[in-house]
Amino acid sequence: MKKTQVKTASKASTRNLSPDAVTAAVIERMQSARSDRFKSVMASLVTHLHAFAKEVQLTEEEWAFAIDFLTKTGQTCSASRQEFILLSDTLGLSTLVTQMNHPSQGQETEQTVLGPFHRESTPIFPLGADIAQGIKGKPLFISGTVSDSRGRPIANARVDIWHADPQGEYDVQKPALGGAMQLRGVFNTDGEGRFHCWSIKPTSYPVPTDGPVGSLLKASKRHPMRPAHVHFMIEAKGFDRLITHVFEEGDRYIDSDAVFGVRDALIIPFKAHRSKLGPDGRILDRSHYRIHYDFHMRKPLSKPKRQNKASR
Amino acid sequence: MKKTQVKTASKASTRNLSPDAVTAAVIERMQSARSDRFKSVMASLVTHLHAFAKEVQLTEEEWAFAIDFLTKTGQTCSASRQEFILLSDTLGLSTLVTQMNHPSQGQETEQTVLGPFHRESTPIFPLGADIAQGIKGKPLFISGTVSDSRGRPIANARVDIWHADPQGEYDVQKPALGGAMQLRGVFNTDGEGRFHCWSIKPTSYPVPTDGPVGSLLKASKRHPMRPAHVHFMIEAKGFDRLITHVFEEGDRYIDSDAVFGVRDALIIPFKAHRSKLGPDGRILDRSHYRIHYDFHMRKPLSKPKRQNKASR
Repeated sequence: MKKTQVKTASKASTRNLSPDAVTAAVIERMQSARSDRFKSVMASLVTHLHAFAKEVQLTEEEWAFAIDFLTKTGQTCSASRQEFILLSDTLGLSTLVTQMNHPSQGQETEQTVLGPFHRESTPIFPLGADIAQGIKGKPLFISGTVSDSRGRPIANARVDIWHADPQGEYDVQKPALGGAMQLRGVFNTDGEGRFHCWSIKPTSYPVPTDGPVGSLLKASKRHPMRPAHVHFMIEAKGFDRLITHVFEEGDRYIDSDAVFGVRDALIIPFKAHRSKLGPDGRILDRSHYRIHYDFHMRKPLSKPKRQNKASR
Repeated sequence: MKKTQVKTASKASTRNLSPDAVTAAVIERMQSARSDRFKSVMASLVTHLHAFAKEVQLTEEEWAFAIDFLTKTGQTCSASRQEFILLSDTLGLSTLVTQMNHPSQGQETEQTVLGPFHRESTPIFPLGADIAQGIKGKPLFISGTVSDSRGRPIANARVDIWHADPQGEYDVQKPALGGAMQLRGVFNTDGEGRFHCWSIKPTSYPVPTDGPVGSLLKASKRHPMRPAHVHFMIEAKGFDRLITHVFEEGDRYIDSDAVFGVRDALIIPFKAHRSKLGPDGRILDRSHYRIHYDFHMRKPLSKPKRQNKASR
């Protein structure tokens, strides 16, 4: 008898839902889901989504605008563009998730956002190769080391490097390339954890502004610029994957990165060298720049399996 | 001097953002926007988005899943399908927004969700027309009145009616129709605020389950069913637009509508009549059903202009 009463009460609560009752009703409806994690994530999501709508007393016009904005954001995505990652980046969500999952600690290199321009299956090049592949620009010598948190070198670490061209565009943003890769390459560290290659100097550039996220930045009166940077994704057996950038010291956007990714420890000088002789003996037809960074990898935290899975 | 210090402090706060600092930095970045409403909506949105991610300690794997889910949701949308509205409906957001903007009061007919299947430019039919347009089913006589909150009839009100077929599909879900309309029509009330037409009896049906929202319902172990209903959108000069349904009394899903739209006052009997003679004198080849509803329109609230705009 008691059971029936409870059932009736629960059923009744899914009719005539007031703004204050609807949140609990939606959460209640998901309680048969198998995964406790799924249930708690969804309950928190629904709670905050509804709390937001109530807090601002969202109008139907604004709701319709949001539906349209999200639809356009999805439809702007393609094989070479990820507008939802850009939205997450510009709303600071990506930095938040990165920092929660890879909190800064000690000597270990800080992580920052992946961004939407990483490509799988970038080819491996021999150390010293030039990844500019004919693009004109100021020659840049990139070198670094990969070691553990105590500075012990890691041999054969996989160092994936990518960056924009002097016009601020990545290869995937140029349809004329037909999918060919430019300004990206993978290198394996040598026995002493070292790597080096040639490329050209990147510059500060705007995130894509011709889509919904561009409109949002414009409405927010925010500039779309990122300070000049080179992306690194470093993998080594027994260590957490490291996703980070190095930023150019002195860039005018270093304090207002459109995606909130700058960390002091990742800012380095892009040093101009007047000499036409590279540090590896290469003869250039002009002066060049050099950057160097010593990366320190982190051991996985308590739950290695999950940590590993989560970082993929 | 003081001003410079403030500026420096503010600039510094956009580097090295911790999970606790990033929210304020993102909100700060939008403070030059022109519209105060835009700023407060975005500040609340960013605050709740970040609070959600922190509350559940969102992993990078879950973040990537969410990006992919939202992308697919946008890409499932087409001229005849709106998956983001479906997501809003199934997460209870649509009902929340509807109830906030049209709170239940007195004799006025309650609003409920618009749903994704309304079409603009539905043709006007003469009173008594049959909108089934050849689709087979149990004949349904639909009648009603439109009046103000005190019961004074409203002549020439625009009554837009639409519903699903006996298989649970709307015309827009049938590519074979090539855009032709079925089971929808607009009627104008007569001098005494009355309207009537013929159609066929709808049934309970599942919301579309072959897209991302279907996967979410499945993961939530929720059924996708809506109780049988007929949609109404009623417009009359000097009144708020009324968007609502009437639901079939006794439908097995009346207490578990997948989109949380049921209101007691909108549940009516779909009465079976053995006679082959319709209430308007029409001779049928079988028995029929009848529904009747008296709609009461609401006067616009304090801000007629905004109210009107918001409901568009």
